[in-house]
Amino acid sequence: MSIDALPWQTGITRITPNEIRIRGYRLTELMGRVSFAEGVYLLFRGDLPTVEQARLLEAILLSVIDHGVTPPSTQAARTVACTGTPLVSAVAAGMLAISEYHGGAVEVAMELFYGTARRWEAGEELESIVATVLSECKAAKRRLPGYGHRIHTDDPRTRRLLDLAHEWGLCGQFVTIAEAYAKALAQTISKHLPLNVDGAIAALLCELGFPTEVANLVFVIGRVPGLAAHVYEERTRQRPMRAINFTQAEYDGPAARCL
Amino acid sequence: MSIDALPWQTGITRITPNEIRIRGYRLTELMGRVSFAEGVYLLFRGDLPTVEQARLLEAILLSVIDHGVTPPSTQAARTVACTGTPLVSAVAAGMLAISEYHGGAVEVAMELFYGTARRWEAGEELESIVATVLSECKAAKRRLPGYGHRIHTDDPRTRRLLDLAHEWGLCGQFVTIAEAYAKALAQTISKHLPLNVDGAIAALLCELGFPTEVANLVFVIGRVPGLAAHVYEERTRQRPMRAINFTQAEYDGPAARCL
Amino acid sequence: MSIDALPWQTGITRITPNEIRIRGYRLTELMGRVSFAEGVYLLFRGDLPTVEQARLLEAILLSVIDHGVTPPSTQAARTVACTGTPLVSAVAAGMLAISEYHGGAVEVAMELFYGTARRWEAGEELESIVATVLSECKAAKRRLPGYGHRIHTDDPRTRRLLDLAHEWGLCGQFVTIAEAYAKALAQTISKHLPLNVDGAIAALLCELGFPTEVANLVFVIGRVPGLAAHVYEERTRQRPMRAINFTQAEYDGPAARCL
Amino acid sequence: MSIDALPWQTGITRITPNEIRIRGYRLTELMGRVSFAEGVYLLFRGDLPTVEQARLLEAILLSVIDHGVTPPSTQAARTVACTGTPLVSAVAAGMLAISEYHGGAVEVAMELFYGTARRWEAGEELESIVATVLSECKAAKRRLPGYGHRIHTDDPRTRRLLDLAHEWGLCGQFVTIAEAYAKALAQTISKHLPLNVDGAIAALLCELGFPTEVANLVFVIGRVPGLAAHVYEERTRQRPMRAINFTQAEYDGPAARCL
Repeated sequence: MSIDALPWQTGITRITPNEIRIRGYRLTELMGRVSFAEGVYLLFRGDLPTVEQARLLEAILLSVIDHGVTPPSTQAARTVACTGTPLVSAVAAGMLAISEYHGGAVEVAMELFYGTARRWEAGEELESIVATVLSECKAAKRRLPGYGHRIHTDDPRTRRLLDLAHEWGLCGQFVTIAEAYAKALAQTISKHLPLNVDGAIAALLCELGFPTEVANLVFVIGRVPGLAAHVYEERTRQRPMRAINFTQAEYDGPAARCL
Repeated sequence: MSIDALPWQTGITRITPNEIRIRGYRLTELMGRVSFAEGVYLLFRGDLPTVEQARLLEAILLSVIDHGVTPPSTQAARTVACTGTPLVSAVAAGMLAISEYHGGAVEVAMELFYGTARRWEAGEELESIVATVLSECKAAKRRLPGYGHRIHTDDPRTRRLLDLAHEWGLCGQFVTIAEAYAKALAQTISKHLPLNVDGAIAALLCELGFPTEVANLVFVIGRVPGLAAHVYEERTRQRPMRAINFTQAEYDGPAARCL
Repeated sequence: MSIDALPWQTGITRITPNEIRIRGYRLTELMGRVSFAEGVYLLFRGDLPTVEQARLLEAILLSVIDHGVTPPSTQAARTVACTGTPLVSAVAAGMLAISEYHGGAVEVAMELFYGTARRWEAGEELESIVATVLSECKAAKRRLPGYGHRIHTDDPRTRRLLDLAHEWGLCGQFVTIAEAYAKALAQTISKHLPLNVDGAIAALLCELGFPTEVANLVFVIGRVPGLAAHVYEERTRQRPMRAINFTQAEYDGPAARCL
Repeated sequence: MSIDALPWQTGITRITPNEIRIRGYRLTELMGRVSFAEGVYLLFRGDLPTVEQARLLEAILLSVIDHGVTPPSTQAARTVACTGTPLVSAVAAGMLAISEYHGGAVEVAMELFYGTARRWEAGEELESIVATVLSECKAAKRRLPGYGHRIHTDDPRTRRLLDLAHEWGLCGQFVTIAEAYAKALAQTISKHLPLNVDGAIAALLCELGFPTEVANLVFVIGRVPGLAAHVYEERTRQRPMRAINFTQAEYDGPAARCL
């Protein structure tokens, strides 16, 4: 198999003895001067973000950092943690739940927004593209990705993300597109289907120029700390092998407080 | 099974319709005002960090964000990614490699440093504790966790982490302990075994008050972006099912540059 | 969430104190009287197989039980195993590689064979369906699933599986269909693309009435013992954290022998 | 890294073009002549089993093939399956739950039985070893691994396994040892702690000469079909993203029946 002897290329990190360079920057120079989220941006986009882009990515990652014990990823992670497995394995099990129906809407919504933008740039009217897409969805009995939520009728994270992006001057064509779909849905469908947090994140990841294929990965980077906190709590506060009824969880953490 | 009907407690996040509170704070209030790493600190420690603690945790997470294609976690993740699996599954496979010999030294080093601190506080001389532990390791032919490295003779991240912690006034008893072991090793062993990045992180997580059980989880939170970047690159730059020879990887990313 | 209080149904196993019934049979009655592979058949098909069906499923599962250190699943599993992770986690990591390009052809080939059968039953000529599908594949520059192999020009398992199925009277319409595609490929394409083991398994799982969605699961059930044997060997014969070059593996097991 | 160029050895499978030999046997010769469970035995023990050993391994694997929706592995697997993830990933997530408290007792019990056998062979009286171990457990407030069960007061699989092993002449010193512990427990402890299925499997895997490190792997090989059947049922009978209350599951499969 001589082909295996052929070199292949990677453009992420260069490792030499006593030096690590990420996308060209010395890791030790980055440490102390850029934030962890800026490091994430550098890995995915190849360059460091502006101050505003960095702050927006921080907000996006924070927005999905945890959602209590309601998501299947958290439930799977805690269920595995209670068997005595290494906590990292329990987090990995939880991560495997982040897929089509759980987090996956971000990717599909990004495809929708990027696709709409391409048609818009090619000269079609935005209103007409939106109307066409919605009627195609209706005909195919398919939900529009990024709109509606199981638990929150008006997801508080959505408005906050859009407000921040607006404040930081990062609302461009993709937010316009996302809002055009929300408006058209409100006019044509009786059920309330607001832009949800997946849809808002999708629009903003498009504004940041992220490729659609990394949508679930960004969600995972944001959610791993939450999964980690849950498996640690499960291990330290609960007995092993308990039968977990997730509808019986009660919050007993710090009382409501402000920054 | 009436026991399953009993409520149980979680102190992390409170979910109610249209509101998410993490450790008491409204998530939407955190978004835009605290960084993602501060969110990680809040999840694990229950309160927000000081400015210096936040910056130190950013630096710790950045220090492990990627290590090229040399670690087994990255190799496993890329190997799985080339089969066409969802990228999240490939990251999960890579994460499963973060265990005893890969990242795991942080946890064992934290146990060492916390244990040493307890004996020191109880009145033993630090030099004497260090000498005892080293001779026990020697007798048991066990390596001291947190010292020495496969690739870097003088890991650049170690000094940088300690310098930053010193600059921010966060070097306390645990850094003193870590340095006492390094000094004693240098005096007694011919082979060069400096404090490595695992050991430095261990000492600083002790300074931040993190429990030992979360050491691997912190490593995972820091490394997931690197794994994610690699599986995305594998998927987009390489052909499926290639036989990967990791010693043949060549860096072709951005040239060396400074901030 | 009153909906969670609603009962839901499962038709696999009934657990009551001191009794386990699988698809209606007492597990203790099955033990000692049916083989493990017959248990697999019972779980997936709801009833026990005939003697011939049982023997065919044994042969199918055996045919994929291991493939040395060449598949990505085995490479990922051994890479993870060398980090000191629990062996079960290493097998799980390897399993995650069984997807679209690795094992996944069975599912796509089953769809092809079931779809072809439906058209054949509906009155189309088999030769005409085959010709249409092949020209569609050619136009779309898509490979026909279940034909050709990376390593074996004439996969020995393929003929053996078909010979056994023939001997046991289990070659029906799906084997006829699979062979029709192989014959048409040989006539129209210069490159040698024989029915491979994925394709043969696909045809035979169709003969056994398995649904397409379980194809990868059957592959996994068959391959887990191989992955398990490899991670155990890695743990017991190799040193932790070695850099593994899979092209350098040499076989040193028992010499060639016959039953 | 010249060390990577060095060859390394594997004794499991030899792959050459158009030939696969497992432990020296042509895979195509095994197919049709030995069962899948015999293949498992061959992989782990290096040689084919006797007829009796083969039948015992079949019974052991069958005994753990499924346990309804009660185990955490099944709950994690179904929870992940309902998110739309590939079914193989859902099985992998479930497998990660097979660890210390779930299946892990087999490994610890094997260590106990092998250790007891070594002392017995070295000349100690069995009764005296058993008494010492039990009083050590009591002093350390540690449960004896392999005795007692969450659900079954008298696990039906335990007696069946031992009866079959007895019928096939495979009850040797390890079954004697396991029964000696059960007898001593009954005499000294008020709570009923019979040998459970983990303990019986442990004793019989010792009789078959399996190493302790593969205990969890054998459990996994046996349980993967059950996990696979559950994730397939979840995917095909339930709606995605349902909140699963595992105490509300009702069996609606085939009625009780006999072979």
